[in-house]
Amino acid sequence: MANSRLQTEDAEAGAAVVLLSGGLDSATVLAVAKEQGFRCHCLSFDYGQRHRFELTAAAKVAEHLGAAEHVVMSLDLRAFGGSALTADIAVPKDRTERAIGEGIPVTYVPARNLIFLSIAMGLAEVRGAGVIFIGVNAVDYSGYPDCRPEFIESFARTANLATKVGVDALGAGRLGLRIEAPLVKLTKAEIIRLGAGLGVDFAETHSCYDPGLGGEACGRCDSCALRRAGFIQASVPDPTRYAGG
Amino acid sequence: MANSRLQTEDAEAGAAVVLLSGGLDSATVLAVAKEQGFRCHCLSFDYGQRHRFELTAAAKVAEHLGAAEHVVMSLDLRAFGGSALTADIAVPKDRTERAIGEGIPVTYVPARNLIFLSIAMGLAEVRGAGVIFIGVNAVDYSGYPDCRPEFIESFARTANLATKVGVDALGAGRLGLRIEAPLVKLTKAEIIRLGAGLGVDFAETHSCYDPGLGGEACGRCDSCALRRAGFIQASVPDPTRYAGG
Repeated sequence: MANSRLQTEDAEAGAAVVLLSGGLDSATVLAVAKEQGFRCHCLSFDYGQRHRFELTAAAKVAEHLGAAEHVVMSLDLRAFGGSALTADIAVPKDRTERAIGEGIPVTYVPARNLIFLSIAMGLAEVRGAGVIFIGVNAVDYSGYPDCRPEFIESFARTANLATKVGVDALGAGRLGLRIEAPLVKLTKAEIIRLGAGLGVDFAETHSCYDPGLGGEACGRCDSCALRRAGFIQASVPDPTRYAGG
Repeated sequence: MANSRLQTEDAEAGAAVVLLSGGLDSATVLAVAKEQGFRCHCLSFDYGQRHRFELTAAAKVAEHLGAAEHVVMSLDLRAFGGSALTADIAVPKDRTERAIGEGIPVTYVPARNLIFLSIAMGLAEVRGAGVIFIGVNAVDYSGYPDCRPEFIESFARTANLATKVGVDALGAGRLGLRIEAPLVKLTKAEIIRLGAGLGVDFAETHSCYDPGLGGEACGRCDSCALRRAGFIQASVPDPTRYAGG
């Protein structure tokens, strides 16, 4: 492991807010933040998602990986309508990988990452955290504009302008609050290998957009398809409970 | 009034999201948006504020000024703690105007405008609105970093990067979604005169941070002090019901 100087720095990494959905990406991000020595305040959202089972998964992951706190905030995005993840639109199934990569999918939730990051910023301010970790990924989710690095960088600047600490830091030529997106350029297989190496128990994580009542994955939505292919490509055993499987 | 060409443009102004707190600033902003010909989708937040009476005020204002819709979103910011507006910290009373202008007050809600604008952005996307109106003001609330024009401009850029429509517009050198802050450089007296001229019924609005059970204003918090002084300076009769008044 690291030498004592590095360990001291690690212990002093301070507080971070980690956006934790309960999926395998954000579980891996939490493991990365812990590995870097952060005291992790995890934040999940109950936003009226069909796949609410992910909140149970998030709680397990937060506990297993030693988070300092797990805040679940209620936010009823169903008031807007407009997404298959919250409204009464069917979740697409059995799409090809090429179709998954094309355009903005109906499972897109309007402004979701913008909203989640903004609320994370509020929590970061109150907890004195200097970093927000988010598991966005521009490889598999190229259809979501709010998963791209340009968006993340612009958000960081805006968030710093929203607070006194941030304004003072910008004046001194740095960011008072940083946004870390450690998965942004990784493939699903690379994420799985990274998480496995850091002790993530993927059996605790949940990715399916349209799970059964007991949380079993449908195996056919875009999220299941990407996850399933990722485990195969990573040569890591897939612990997911699939419906009828 | 305007000529027919302007009227045609007005009728085609399209949809706007208006952040409506129920205070006199946002009521005036709604009147401005209506005057400019927008179909107004008003958005209020039930965020655990002590002065929840403002939501009743917002509903009255939205109806009176002919809003197309009034969405109230629940969002429990009390989970964070840290503000006198949501937590169990006393609301300061009887402060001088100078003291009100100094530093970040305890009534500051962490990242509030960032969060509210982000959610407004989600609603704008679903309703096809090209503009978000917000009643921020950099004169009376100079202690709030998220009321300044630099923040609003940076948010607009970030919000455009979060959506496909916005990214395409930025590529063409313009903003797909604009943020309008028509009060940003006005004094409270100027806002009151503007609203009065546009038919706002200020008796319907609510500003007090610490109201009585029937919604009567305390007359002594920072918000009451600024409002009271504004009516006097504007030479407009103050219709506010003050406690014991």
